[in-house]
Amino acid sequence: VGAMGALAAEIAPHLAPGCTVTDVGSVKQAVVAAVAPHLPEGVHFIPGHPMAGTEYSGPRSGFATLFVNRWWLLTPGDTPRAAVDQLTLLLKAMGAKVNEMTPEHHDQVVAVVSHAPHLIAYTMVGVADHLAQVSNSEVIEYSASGFRDFTRIAASDPTMWRDVFLTNKDAVLDILGRFAEELFVLQRAIRMGDGDHLFDYFTRTRAIRRGIIEAGQDTAAPDFGRAVSK
Amino acid sequence: VGAMGALAAEIAPHLAPGCTVTDVGSVKQAVVAAVAPHLPEGVHFIPGHPMAGTEYSGPRSGFATLFVNRWWLLTPGDTPRAAVDQLTLLLKAMGAKVNEMTPEHHDQVVAVVSHAPHLIAYTMVGVADHLAQVSNSEVIEYSASGFRDFTRIAASDPTMWRDVFLTNKDAVLDILGRFAEELFVLQRAIRMGDGDHLFDYFTRTRAIRRGIIEAGQDTAAPDFGRAVSK
Repeated sequence: VGAMGALAAEIAPHLAPGCTVTDVGSVKQAVVAAVAPHLPEGVHFIPGHPMAGTEYSGPRSGFATLFVNRWWLLTPGDTPRAAVDQLTLLLKAMGAKVNEMTPEHHDQVVAVVSHAPHLIAYTMVGVADHLAQVSNSEVIEYSASGFRDFTRIAASDPTMWRDVFLTNKDAVLDILGRFAEELFVLQRAIRMGDGDHLFDYFTRTRAIRRGIIEAGQDTAAPDFGRAVSK
Repeated sequence: VGAMGALAAEIAPHLAPGCTVTDVGSVKQAVVAAVAPHLPEGVHFIPGHPMAGTEYSGPRSGFATLFVNRWWLLTPGDTPRAAVDQLTLLLKAMGAKVNEMTPEHHDQVVAVVSHAPHLIAYTMVGVADHLAQVSNSEVIEYSASGFRDFTRIAASDPTMWRDVFLTNKDAVLDILGRFAEELFVLQRAIRMGDGDHLFDYFTRTRAIRRGIIEAGQDTAAPDFGRAVSK
């Protein structure tokens, strides 16, 4: 983010009035704070976040359909409608679906659907790596029982994720705090042998999976389609 | 497990000397404790755990290659080698890979690679379901950013998973305790802005993913192959 501010200051004198500046970062409040003050009057700043990509990164990890049917979130603030519509046309031409929200709300949404799950996956893989009583080769061999899904997420780019957590600190810490609370309640249910609590909790979470499949956001194929094809 | 003991007591009078009894449960110490006391002298009890299947359950969720290249763990104890070899032949004929270990070690291994990841996924999906500031429809729409992997795991059968956590209590609570510790250390690093700690942690966990791909336990295709094909 410091680097983004410096970059904004560097390009600022060369920006013509009426042109649009956007970005593709995973966090929006910090980008607004770093970039907006440097841009001259009359330049439109429309922060953006394409929610696309895989656990791989860099230019060689792109592919032609990268943005097809994927959300591209914009936080245009009070930018004139014409400039936002122009950018939206460009993004839709790449196949993306576009939605607008405030930077604050964006950062809360991604903390839930992306940032917290990534930190949790990194943590679980780190725990497995530390264990003395179960060897790493056993963790690797028997990973197909759920753990390997975590390792894919935890294989994402360390530099990018370091910066995500440092710049979306408040929203991420809020979600992680709630997560730890819920985890402790479930741990306690296990310790006390409260099977009804566990059963009710596990039943409720199934509804969200059904919603995701019905919304076309994931496949209904067992094990993401891995199981049968293997 | 109570039901398993009752079942063992019921079949016991009808078991011929020299026959083998096995099971397919996810936890082994509790099964040994419940079943073994009921079986008559001369009957071989070889607890087993096929690490196969998907988030779907029941007879209609089976398929012809369900066990192909999947591990089937046995905890034969001091069962005569001939009986273990006979069962192993049957399992290998279904395509499974067979390994033997103690019930104690089995329960520790699955707590790491399967049980704890499932509870963590259930927890994260429950947190998202509870949030007031981010709607469930937003969680569903934007789930492709990591969260949807958790929802697949958290869509598994509630009855089975309730019983898994209640019967593998000690090993699961041990792993969850370690997980909470690591999570708090990472939360603190985020709060204190310790980017170096985050970067080092995220770099280390990548090695396990590489090991899993090299061992043939998962695909190297980006996003499990979902991203490009969609």
